[in-house]
Amino acid sequence: MTKPNPQARERIVAGAADMISRRGLNATSVRELAKFAKAPLGSTYHYFPDGKQQLATEAVRYTGETVSAALGEELREAGPVAGLRAFLALWRDIVIRTDFRAGCPVLAVAIEEPPGEDIPAALTAAAEVFDSWETLLADSLRAHGTEREQAAQLATLVVAAVEGTVALCRAKRSIEPLDRVTMQLEALVGASIGG
Amino acid sequence: MTKPNPQARERIVAGAADMISRRGLNATSVRELAKFAKAPLGSTYHYFPDGKQQLATEAVRYTGETVSAALGEELREAGPVAGLRAFLALWRDIVIRTDFRAGCPVLAVAIEEPPGEDIPAALTAAAEVFDSWETLLADSLRAHGTEREQAAQLATLVVAAVEGTVALCRAKRSIEPLDRVTMQLEALVGASIGG
Repeated sequence: MTKPNPQARERIVAGAADMISRRGLNATSVRELAKFAKAPLGSTYHYFPDGKQQLATEAVRYTGETVSAALGEELREAGPVAGLRAFLALWRDIVIRTDFRAGCPVLAVAIEEPPGEDIPAALTAAAEVFDSWETLLADSLRAHGTEREQAAQLATLVVAAVEGTVALCRAKRSIEPLDRVTMQLEALVGASIGG
Repeated sequence: MTKPNPQARERIVAGAADMISRRGLNATSVRELAKFAKAPLGSTYHYFPDGKQQLATEAVRYTGETVSAALGEELREAGPVAGLRAFLALWRDIVIRTDFRAGCPVLAVAIEEPPGEDIPAALTAAAEVFDSWETLLADSLRAHGTEREQAAQLATLVVAAVEGTVALCRAKRSIEPLDRVTMQLEALVGASIGG
């Protein structure tokens, strides 16, 4: 029996997040996810007995929490514009570091049709992750004087625009879309808090 | 031998665009694409002898041209805000009509890692489609008085934000993200042309 090992478990989750962002969920098997994370298939099934949906759900939540930690810290310590910059920098780093091959696993999961009528757990997790990023941004905007409705709209625009921009960058193999969107979003967030 | 039939050919391309937007490209076979379009597998290979990449490339271009036709007409006849509304309405219709199951095949192709070092034709087509939508929007903004750099940035923001918002709507099974982003983008485009 595999001895519980939080590091090994987290390495599999992080690997799954990376691979799902590259290839999508439908096209990826647990076997491939295990291989990509350099984990034995047996221990992968030990940690994730329910298979691909369980691993994908945890990968989506892991990405959500990692990004929220970085975004939340900057928002608290330095305000909305700095938070936005941290959010953008995080995606810029992933896209450039992987030569435009990886992006956001939450987006990848979000655009795959549920196989039946039931909503898969990973898709629900994706919705929750988007909500959590929007809420962090909206709360910070409101704390810096933005009116409630404007804060909610702008937060959704930021999350949607960044997700879409990562896809544009990957298709074009260029960071220029992110540079352009950064200029626009920084101006918007700055104006919204009167900065 | 299959008799050339432009309608049959286009039906396969349109079906492929729909299915790729639902399930991604990696997870989809030519057999499934043919079945989804209710076309015999033989005639599908007859029209697309190079297989999945060829069909996917045409599906991406077909989406690009369909959207460009609607967007371009509104931009020419009624200006940037009307063009933006037509662009948004098009995606809203797809998302609602399919109960949040379909979206944009260009985005789906854009976020799948190339299998090797070569850039697949469908990915190149995706980059060209994003460029074409951005160019239509940017040209119209400039024709209505927006400065060149601002027009380019805002056009990229619109395309990226709409692509990302469709993904947010699908994850949340709600049209609210699109409503919020619509308000923000209409205000931005309006202000940019002094409207």
